[in-house]
Amino acid sequence: MPARRTTASETTFHVRYAETDRMGVVHHAAYLIWFEEGRSAFIRERGWSYAEIEREGFFLAAGELRAKYLRPARYDQLVTVRTWIETYKSRTIDFSCEVLDTPSRELLFSATVKLICLDDKGSIARIPVAWSEWLDD
Amino acid sequence: MPARRTTASETTFHVRYAETDRMGVVHHAAYLIWFEEGRSAFIRERGWSYAEIEREGFFLAAGELRAKYLRPARYDQLVTVRTWIETYKSRTIDFSCEVLDTPSRELLFSATVKLICLDDKGSIARIPVAWSEWLDD
Amino acid sequence: MPARRTTASETTFHVRYAETDRMGVVHHAAYLIWFEEGRSAFIRERGWSYAEIEREGFFLAAGELRAKYLRPARYDQLVTVRTWIETYKSRTIDFSCEVLDTPSRELLFSATVKLICLDDKGSIARIPVAWSEWLDD
Amino acid sequence: MPARRTTASETTFHVRYAETDRMGVVHHAAYLIWFEEGRSAFIRERGWSYAEIEREGFFLAAGELRAKYLRPARYDQLVTVRTWIETYKSRTIDFSCEVLDTPSRELLFSATVKLICLDDKGSIARIPVAWSEWLDD
Repeated sequence: MPARRTTASETTFHVRYAETDRMGVVHHAAYLIWFEEGRSAFIRERGWSYAEIEREGFFLAAGELRAKYLRPARYDQLVTVRTWIETYKSRTIDFSCEVLDTPSRELLFSATVKLICLDDKGSIARIPVAWSEWLDD
Repeated sequence: MPARRTTASETTFHVRYAETDRMGVVHHAAYLIWFEEGRSAFIRERGWSYAEIEREGFFLAAGELRAKYLRPARYDQLVTVRTWIETYKSRTIDFSCEVLDTPSRELLFSATVKLICLDDKGSIARIPVAWSEWLDD
Repeated sequence: MPARRTTASETTFHVRYAETDRMGVVHHAAYLIWFEEGRSAFIRERGWSYAEIEREGFFLAAGELRAKYLRPARYDQLVTVRTWIETYKSRTIDFSCEVLDTPSRELLFSATVKLICLDDKGSIARIPVAWSEWLDD
Repeated sequence: MPARRTTASETTFHVRYAETDRMGVVHHAAYLIWFEEGRSAFIRERGWSYAEIEREGFFLAAGELRAKYLRPARYDQLVTVRTWIETYKSRTIDFSCEVLDTPSRELLFSATVKLICLDDKGSIARIPVAWSEWLDD
């Protein structure tokens, strides 16, 4: 198990128009989708793929979520999602992320999610040993 | 096969905040999700469920779509989705819908989608005979 | 200020197909949109509208969120969103919600969000006195 | 006015998990959001921004849409959105797009949307002359 946080992975993209709402800024649910894409990028960068994890019959389902909205993101803004593993146990993984304004590195949003490892019947399952290749990196 | 259109089913709900964008009105992709919910309601009203269709190993996938946006829908507005079958063939079903402002019955949006019947391998499949119970109703 | 929680408002609807993901269950971001619709219903039931609040130049923006995912919701399932005010202060409102399976009242999801009152320049603002009509009800 | 199509702009990204549905593939409404992001990229590449267009008091609203779904896109797949202007008139712009599997250039989806130029009161407006900088490029 990681004695401390992993290094973070970063993925950068422009805010899409559909992600805004009539308040003129990004809707608060869109950040969860960015965080999820951050986790995909984290796994991808370590030479694995979450798609492959599912093909092997495992799923990582959201169990608990905590999020802070600090400054609004806006349409067409370039944002960077930084994602890392906070800690993990035999059946759960805690991922954290920060969403930053890319040019200024100003913090817009931060969150932590506890993911629960499930097998293909939906039962809680032990994290396979082989995953330490991307979990500890 | 239907010599003419089926009767329409109607489902009514309030526009959700997340469905708007920074233009202040409903985002154009949201209407497709309402139309899809209209098809769910159409099947449900005839005593079937699209969930059951999938459990039996069939899927209805969008093949072609045509849509007209006539007037913007707005947050909290009460809208009605009218959905009917335009026609169907051995392997495809053409659904149409209209989205109306509920109190005035003013037309906001209309669309037609051609759905293709697929089996659980993703191959084009013949529509099961039993479906005539909801297709012709 | 409320000495205790307000009564809850309930809104009930079918899970939409677009709200599911390839895990076969509802995507974890969709619950935030349901919670938001729960808050809309809460205000609507008290004879106000969040649309009117925005017309008067105020916005309620998400500041912090905590959520627990207990059991997966599925396509076409009938779900009920129960929403209430936990507490409020001069510039913030804490809303909570539970998502239940409608027939069994089984709990699927619970969350609390701290909303921050903003004026039309995006500055933190004092909650107008008149809102006590729906805040305390 | 363009005697023929403009050159196309391309933007490439990974399919997000939230964009899939329980059919296991990308939901049909997600392609409209990609197409919209393709239009944003088209304008951005020509040194303009759709955000700036809105700051000047103009909006481009979807009027009509035609779309063909050829092959399903899947989670984590790298896709490329090619976007160009088909034609434009004094008050409308027809954009087209193709979504391709990035490595193979296989066509997954194609669509055309007619956008209507609106002023900040929501009335149909003449396209400003200055836009020819990005419209004709």
